[in-house]
Amino acid sequence: MRNDGRLFGQLRKVKLEVNCNKFADGSCFVQIGNTHVICIANVDETVPRFLKGTGSGWVTAEYGMLPGSTNSRMQREVTKGKASGRTQEIQRLIGRTLRTAVNLVALKERQIIVDCDVIQADGGTRTASITGAYVALYLALQKLHKQGGVNIFPIKEQVAAISCGIIGGNILLDLDYSEDSLAQVDANFVMTKSKKIVEIQATAERKTFSQEELSQMYALADSGIGELIKKQNEVLNIA
Amino acid sequence: MRNDGRLFGQLRKVKLEVNCNKFADGSCFVQIGNTHVICIANVDETVPRFLKGTGSGWVTAEYGMLPGSTNSRMQREVTKGKASGRTQEIQRLIGRTLRTAVNLVALKERQIIVDCDVIQADGGTRTASITGAYVALYLALQKLHKQGGVNIFPIKEQVAAISCGIIGGNILLDLDYSEDSLAQVDANFVMTKSKKIVEIQATAERKTFSQEELSQMYALADSGIGELIKKQNEVLNIA
Amino acid sequence: MRNDGRLFGQLRKVKLEVNCNKFADGSCFVQIGNTHVICIANVDETVPRFLKGTGSGWVTAEYGMLPGSTNSRMQREVTKGKASGRTQEIQRLIGRTLRTAVNLVALKERQIIVDCDVIQADGGTRTASITGAYVALYLALQKLHKQGGVNIFPIKEQVAAISCGIIGGNILLDLDYSEDSLAQVDANFVMTKSKKIVEIQATAERKTFSQEELSQMYALADSGIGELIKKQNEVLNIA
Amino acid sequence: MRNDGRLFGQLRKVKLEVNCNKFADGSCFVQIGNTHVICIANVDETVPRFLKGTGSGWVTAEYGMLPGSTNSRMQREVTKGKASGRTQEIQRLIGRTLRTAVNLVALKERQIIVDCDVIQADGGTRTASITGAYVALYLALQKLHKQGGVNIFPIKEQVAAISCGIIGGNILLDLDYSEDSLAQVDANFVMTKSKKIVEIQATAERKTFSQEELSQMYALADSGIGELIKKQNEVLNIA
Amino acid sequence: MRNDGRLFGQLRKVKLEVNCNKFADGSCFVQIGNTHVICIANVDETVPRFLKGTGSGWVTAEYGMLPGSTNSRMQREVTKGKASGRTQEIQRLIGRTLRTAVNLVALKERQIIVDCDVIQADGGTRTASITGAYVALYLALQKLHKQGGVNIFPIKEQVAAISCGIIGGNILLDLDYSEDSLAQVDANFVMTKSKKIVEIQATAERKTFSQEELSQMYALADSGIGELIKKQNEVLNIA
Amino acid sequence: MRNDGRLFGQLRKVKLEVNCNKFADGSCFVQIGNTHVICIANVDETVPRFLKGTGSGWVTAEYGMLPGSTNSRMQREVTKGKASGRTQEIQRLIGRTLRTAVNLVALKERQIIVDCDVIQADGGTRTASITGAYVALYLALQKLHKQGGVNIFPIKEQVAAISCGIIGGNILLDLDYSEDSLAQVDANFVMTKSKKIVEIQATAERKTFSQEELSQMYALADSGIGELIKKQNEVLNIA
Repeated sequence: MRNDGRLFGQLRKVKLEVNCNKFADGSCFVQIGNTHVICIANVDETVPRFLKGTGSGWVTAEYGMLPGSTNSRMQREVTKGKASGRTQEIQRLIGRTLRTAVNLVALKERQIIVDCDVIQADGGTRTASITGAYVALYLALQKLHKQGGVNIFPIKEQVAAISCGIIGGNILLDLDYSEDSLAQVDANFVMTKSKKIVEIQATAERKTFSQEELSQMYALADSGIGELIKKQNEVLNIA
Repeated sequence: MRNDGRLFGQLRKVKLEVNCNKFADGSCFVQIGNTHVICIANVDETVPRFLKGTGSGWVTAEYGMLPGSTNSRMQREVTKGKASGRTQEIQRLIGRTLRTAVNLVALKERQIIVDCDVIQADGGTRTASITGAYVALYLALQKLHKQGGVNIFPIKEQVAAISCGIIGGNILLDLDYSEDSLAQVDANFVMTKSKKIVEIQATAERKTFSQEELSQMYALADSGIGELIKKQNEVLNIA
Repeated sequence: MRNDGRLFGQLRKVKLEVNCNKFADGSCFVQIGNTHVICIANVDETVPRFLKGTGSGWVTAEYGMLPGSTNSRMQREVTKGKASGRTQEIQRLIGRTLRTAVNLVALKERQIIVDCDVIQADGGTRTASITGAYVALYLALQKLHKQGGVNIFPIKEQVAAISCGIIGGNILLDLDYSEDSLAQVDANFVMTKSKKIVEIQATAERKTFSQEELSQMYALADSGIGELIKKQNEVLNIA
Repeated sequence: MRNDGRLFGQLRKVKLEVNCNKFADGSCFVQIGNTHVICIANVDETVPRFLKGTGSGWVTAEYGMLPGSTNSRMQREVTKGKASGRTQEIQRLIGRTLRTAVNLVALKERQIIVDCDVIQADGGTRTASITGAYVALYLALQKLHKQGGVNIFPIKEQVAAISCGIIGGNILLDLDYSEDSLAQVDANFVMTKSKKIVEIQATAERKTFSQEELSQMYALADSGIGELIKKQNEVLNIA
Repeated sequence: MRNDGRLFGQLRKVKLEVNCNKFADGSCFVQIGNTHVICIANVDETVPRFLKGTGSGWVTAEYGMLPGSTNSRMQREVTKGKASGRTQEIQRLIGRTLRTAVNLVALKERQIIVDCDVIQADGGTRTASITGAYVALYLALQKLHKQGGVNIFPIKEQVAAISCGIIGGNILLDLDYSEDSLAQVDANFVMTKSKKIVEIQATAERKTFSQEELSQMYALADSGIGELIKKQNEVLNIA
Repeated sequence: MRNDGRLFGQLRKVKLEVNCNKFADGSCFVQIGNTHVICIANVDETVPRFLKGTGSGWVTAEYGMLPGSTNSRMQREVTKGKASGRTQEIQRLIGRTLRTAVNLVALKERQIIVDCDVIQADGGTRTASITGAYVALYLALQKLHKQGGVNIFPIKEQVAAISCGIIGGNILLDLDYSEDSLAQVDANFVMTKSKKIVEIQATAERKTFSQEELSQMYALADSGIGELIKKQNEVLNIA
């Protein structure tokens, strides 16, 4: 029924490859269908100014797309001299989400910088980034913990994210680019293993939607995120 | 119970002043408690490049804060050389919302530029901006319609917006700045007169939230937006 | 004889509204005809680097125009990435003028930042800004003095400003925008209560002018500034 | 009495060297004491957008200082990413002045771009720039006229500029850098051969000044500009 | 003898993976030891302004490094607002080299944009980029040729590149990062299949070098480039 | 045979004028034919952050061109907001070269900033800059040495630079602009008095070149640099 034969409530093929980078403290190459993102987490022994002396840490994220990642080549953001509104919106979302996952006090006065770089973009790059970033972050914190940098392992919540949308009245899970550009409603859900919500962004692109439709998207997202959480735990060797 | 004696589900005092600017095609000075925003709509006889030759129009929004609008003076964005991520996120939200309100084909190949400038900021500036921007936009389109620039009046939906939050387990409507900085969950709702959703952004600031809490915030927002829609219609002289 | 029925030597209607902003240390909303400027003064307990350790303070000013303030919408300066030459020229002028008004040693090692934001622009925005900025600055210093931050009240001169111009051979006081765009000579005068000159900028826009014409403009400006000084003192409750 | 033995009303040594650049349409290397400026005028067969189709031309100026031109090395403006307020103020002044000198209609739809680059700076760079820029402009227009690009020679006024200041109650002509940094009042005069005023900028740096002092500075400037006009005509071979 | 057991004249392990990107006209993922670069070539049906109407085409290159590609995380260039001098130097080098490889007239009035993005950096990223970029470019031109966009296949030279260096008096081929940071001389060679030189950049980092040493480096580079050319032809299925 | 009657292996007329600037620690106005560059060296008692506490110094260079220096006026780089790739490439080259000339430990923890500003450009501006910068640097260090700022005179190598090129199969020394734009190969050589190489950049502009041609260019450059070294020593009064 869908382009690629998927059911409405079905995820694309998901692949998480840990330690894809030789230099990073933690890294994960996430592939969700044709959307490919390199997520790299590095420990940085400084904190933003507003945290100096508080004893608390920070997690921040940056997001980028290679100019050749998209269907028709994008201009490099450095050429325009600044990150676009979309880029900033996405990196703020990833950062907020990861901070929810982490016990910032246990992290102590240091920060984790997570870079999500899209190598190939076929829809859902921000949710794929979150799902992969969690894995990279987990690995970086595991390394820090093993090295004695922290006493308590600073992960407090497991997070993953997925998109939903409405096309022709149907509720669909995990839209690819061709679906995304047709969707009347576009929603991104970030949720925890414990089925709590971290963030919902639901936007009417062409027509408004009802509370009932929001609930249906929620249910689909909930099931998709459950699958992603399982995949994360597989590659992290968590039972 | 709240700082200013309001009930949990009560809006701050709302005042909409139309035609606050001598030069604009449409304007509205919106005051929601101590949050004050000047909303100005101007018709511009060009369209963004991707719309040239399509016969369809556009609505775009820009948002700014005076450096002296906040409790402690903010740096002027021009000094930093670019709009912050927050500013861009807000102006993208206002723009998307207003485009949902407008029949872009009826508007023909021109754009409406809406400027929302915050004169005083005490929480809820993005939702106040949307509520006031709708009024400014309506007035600009009314002028355009009277002058014969459009045949069909291009408003298709009436929109307004409000925030909700969770503090100490209580669900609150229309947070002021002091509440906003304490909230565990911060949500912004944009809805139509017909009770449909245009946009929901709900974010866990300190702790995650359940679907049940989302529903409760929805109910409160729905009632608050009903009141704002009534206020808009009063100043627009719509029965 | 003039557009709005004014005599050559007559000011537009002047209104100064003190404490227009809830958060500022001092504020004044100045309206001179259809030119409306919000002036906000805030005390900042730092000084520019070149003053560190000198025991002396500083006064600086920033100036901006809302994009919707003018007859046809202006581009937001942050979009261009930098303040225009005109903006910088004006804020340098306001800053210099206010520093002349203040005993910087009595102010001690802190600075006052004055923001002049034009809400509506109909000519004479720089002179209106100076006239309103003085009031905002006075109020901020009064608050500082009451709180014991300074021992000596740091105002040493009272300043105000007005424009003059030559149109069709006639010398006019306080040009509005339509007059300004016709003027052959455009001059701005900043003067003190004691009738001394702080700054004169007189520019031939279309034709040069004689020393005699400069003297006539000076006389008109002198009388206009006298009236503005009186208005300032009224709202500051100075006999 | 002055540092270098000059009388209060005496200019520094003035040297104008025409055709100092092999490639320019007109050029003049102006040396006023230790202030050295290369002024280069080039004809450009385009006009700013607002003049397209009007048949009228334009004159614009740019101003820069070599980083090594000053007593202690200045940062290169390109490093800061933008021209300072001072630079923009000066280039706007030079441009306005030169446009007063030129019959823009006779120039036809083209522009003259004049670059004033300070090689060595010892005070009075803006007035030296104007004095030299006039010569470079004249030469470029002479070349254009000879080549038949214009029918009427487009110079309508001869302009030159000089500074005055008040130090210790004395009125001084043509301040060098050491005097400039001591001056209580700093004034720049741009005047024509016919003794008319093009621009006056007079600023109280430390103390305000009276109309009488303005008149005295005017008289001194008038005499200095007369000498500069003579020097210009000598190198331009005008009787 | 070298860190990784290589001989002085030995390349690191080279792997070229064609068609690594689903959307590009041509792509090659090049791995030279731990240096990994994605090279993407896209056909763009415009040309830079100076070529409009000439009938001739253009090849341009852009280069970037992921922030997590290096040993210690690099700042994202977009954050600094501009490409560094090093980045610009490298992308100018890649562009010049590729233009030497292409018959620009046969390409007709269009350009090929080649993006070289470093995923992991362990020395020699500019030479790896050139070697991979040639392959991506070849594939994009092959596609264009098959689709009839060009009549003559526009490749005229095959190019590849490698580094050499002098450490402790020894001449080494293909330096990794740890060697590069020790090298007294650092040289990059770009050569053709026909053993001609396209570009040599040889720099004394710590001590100067003799003509004899330059010749020895040339010989080593010549042999290494021969191997790279063979690898390119293998993946391009050229006998 | 050449435009200006020079032999293939002949330099243009070289003139080095020391102490051309009143304020600099060392300065040299270098004229090579119609290429004129002001080189200014200033001692700065700070070092880049990576050198703090190391006891070692630094030499850095900046390069600029006056907008009127070229045949057709160039845009001022500050207007574009950043230095071009070419500018950065050249200033990196000059800086590297000068650091090779200096004993950075003997310099102690301070830096020399060398500004090379092109007043007139007729080809070979980067090599003329290096040749003149060495002289300015030498003079600044001599002054520092005399003042007792360093114990050991920190010059360890004498450097100069020249270009070569291939036009119509002929090898030419010291190309002027008209030759440069015709050259098939363009090479810049930086060498020492002791005939060692500091940097070679040889680029095929239109056709590739052989190792034999590289050697011939080397021989010509070697002889030209010998002459420049002699000129430097003449103006520095070194036997």
